[in-house]
Amino acid sequence: MKLAALKTGTPDGVLHVVSRDLSRSVAATGIAETLQAAIEQWDQVAPALERLYDSLNAGTAPDAADLVMTDVAAPLPRAWQWLDASAFHSHGDLLEKVFGLEPPPEKKTVPLMYQGAGDELLGATDDVPLPSEADGMDFEAELAVILDRVPMGTTAAQGERHIRLLTLVNDTSLRALAAKDLKTGFGFLQSKGATTFGPVAVTPDELGAAWRDGRVDLPMHIHWNGKEFGHPHCGAMGFSFGELVAHAARTRNLCAGTIIGTGTISNDTFREVGSACIAERRAIELTDEGQPRTPYLKFGDRVRIEMLDANGASIFGAIDQRYVQASPAPQ
Amino acid sequence: MKLAALKTGTPDGVLHVVSRDLSRSVAATGIAETLQAAIEQWDQVAPALERLYDSLNAGTAPDAADLVMTDVAAPLPRAWQWLDASAFHSHGDLLEKVFGLEPPPEKKTVPLMYQGAGDELLGATDDVPLPSEADGMDFEAELAVILDRVPMGTTAAQGERHIRLLTLVNDTSLRALAAKDLKTGFGFLQSKGATTFGPVAVTPDELGAAWRDGRVDLPMHIHWNGKEFGHPHCGAMGFSFGELVAHAARTRNLCAGTIIGTGTISNDTFREVGSACIAERRAIELTDEGQPRTPYLKFGDRVRIEMLDANGASIFGAIDQRYVQASPAPQ
Repeated sequence: MKLAALKTGTPDGVLHVVSRDLSRSVAATGIAETLQAAIEQWDQVAPALERLYDSLNAGTAPDAADLVMTDVAAPLPRAWQWLDASAFHSHGDLLEKVFGLEPPPEKKTVPLMYQGAGDELLGATDDVPLPSEADGMDFEAELAVILDRVPMGTTAAQGERHIRLLTLVNDTSLRALAAKDLKTGFGFLQSKGATTFGPVAVTPDELGAAWRDGRVDLPMHIHWNGKEFGHPHCGAMGFSFGELVAHAARTRNLCAGTIIGTGTISNDTFREVGSACIAERRAIELTDEGQPRTPYLKFGDRVRIEMLDANGASIFGAIDQRYVQASPAPQ
Repeated sequence: MKLAALKTGTPDGVLHVVSRDLSRSVAATGIAETLQAAIEQWDQVAPALERLYDSLNAGTAPDAADLVMTDVAAPLPRAWQWLDASAFHSHGDLLEKVFGLEPPPEKKTVPLMYQGAGDELLGATDDVPLPSEADGMDFEAELAVILDRVPMGTTAAQGERHIRLLTLVNDTSLRALAAKDLKTGFGFLQSKGATTFGPVAVTPDELGAAWRDGRVDLPMHIHWNGKEFGHPHCGAMGFSFGELVAHAARTRNLCAGTIIGTGTISNDTFREVGSACIAERRAIELTDEGQPRTPYLKFGDRVRIEMLDANGASIFGAIDQRYVQASPAPQ
């Protein structure tokens, strides 16, 4: 099934079930008010949500309405936990090159993962407000999973069973600040803006045969100002989602509603399939031409991220948003 | 005033006002159900909470009851954001030594800060469950502030005005995993267990003259298995809380309920005042004796963290908790 949080002035949105073709939606009234509430009692509420989804797809759900994508918030407009990995090895290789970083010693055997800020997550069509173009604004197209509660010490095989939903991510990054954050060892802090999710979160069964080995075996389509920028394949993850869950739960429980991202989608065949962030293209230019040529984002630029099924239908809807100058803080 | 969340089986506890002497409490019924709800509408609810506090201290609050510290959860049992700094320079100096780390180039002028996991925060008397003594279990005594909403670009002077509450922290760390996490550049992930807060959160006015220059000018008292381990002074922060807020809000908004910690409290006079974590003592032993001598925590060990006012009265109550072996994850 497909779920979304609709904007209603409340901080966590209102949970809606969305039709498979993304055209219609209906509030999950009486089942769960928010996605966080649903994920905390998933086994109890999922059957009722599935029944509502079936009636919505059949055109028999009362109170259904057309889905307006600009009304959609992030599936979890605030998340108690947002963790992001770097699960595509070619992305790590390229970014080490462009930023002159030392490769982490166990990078092919132990997932890289950082604790992200989950307190303010943007909806798929929301503007991304940032303070300055000089910070090197970049997008990062990713997939993410949303988990129910994961106990400390969960294995990769068990971890995969905690995956309840998948969604799209644009992990906005500020490249002029990233190397500095990395060099402290303390992780990304100023070098990440608010992250974007959605528009829709789907259960793994919606992916059919493309959901295999704890990975999604489909390309991601990235456009920058209307022009294709890349369509790297998500099946190339160097670690499965189950392995990412186990890595995160090594020394602590993960609360229900934890989100884990793949990191920037990237393929070894980057020269053919393109990239899912500008920094990676700059690394390729540095390799091929001796210097990076593609500039980072300007205010007003638009980024689109979408995944299509084997029939060309949009699975999650599209992240399609503009980068804008943030208003100054009140004095 | 003093506030606490009492355990009631709900994930966020129930907000209580606590008497100045920490002996009695009363639910904030009809004002705000949880501390998160209160902090989201602080200006609206603070006057009513203050009136309840006054009547509780005067012994005239109906429905007041004796406060049992084991009933107290973390002030925010889940936080939308938990950020932790390393604001005491002598702590950074010593830990670089013991872990053989490169000093960050701007360490005296730009705060070090990491994004912590806020999804499961422990109460002050809760056991700390961890998987293995071999991970090098350590405590870190800290102070933290709880903020209302902070807009992106807030300055240090403005930042201080967003501080609504202060509380104690035990930032449990796993030293055998820390250097590895730091070397990835991605920050602490497996090397931090669940963090402990509380028991009580207090408004800055409760600190009287000890609240100055955006710092708390009092020592923190740390005991390990009943023996004094250190009493470093919190006034020695290399950055003020206002500066930490501004650093965190450089490229994004901080939601109401964001917690920012000082990092391990530490003084240049560590040989006289002792330390607030074991790693630091090991660094001193390495310097003075050529090798670290003090082992990390064993299961069953107890840690106590408390701050006293000028008259010797406990301000926040005490973090007083045991480290225990976590139950294995269900198969």
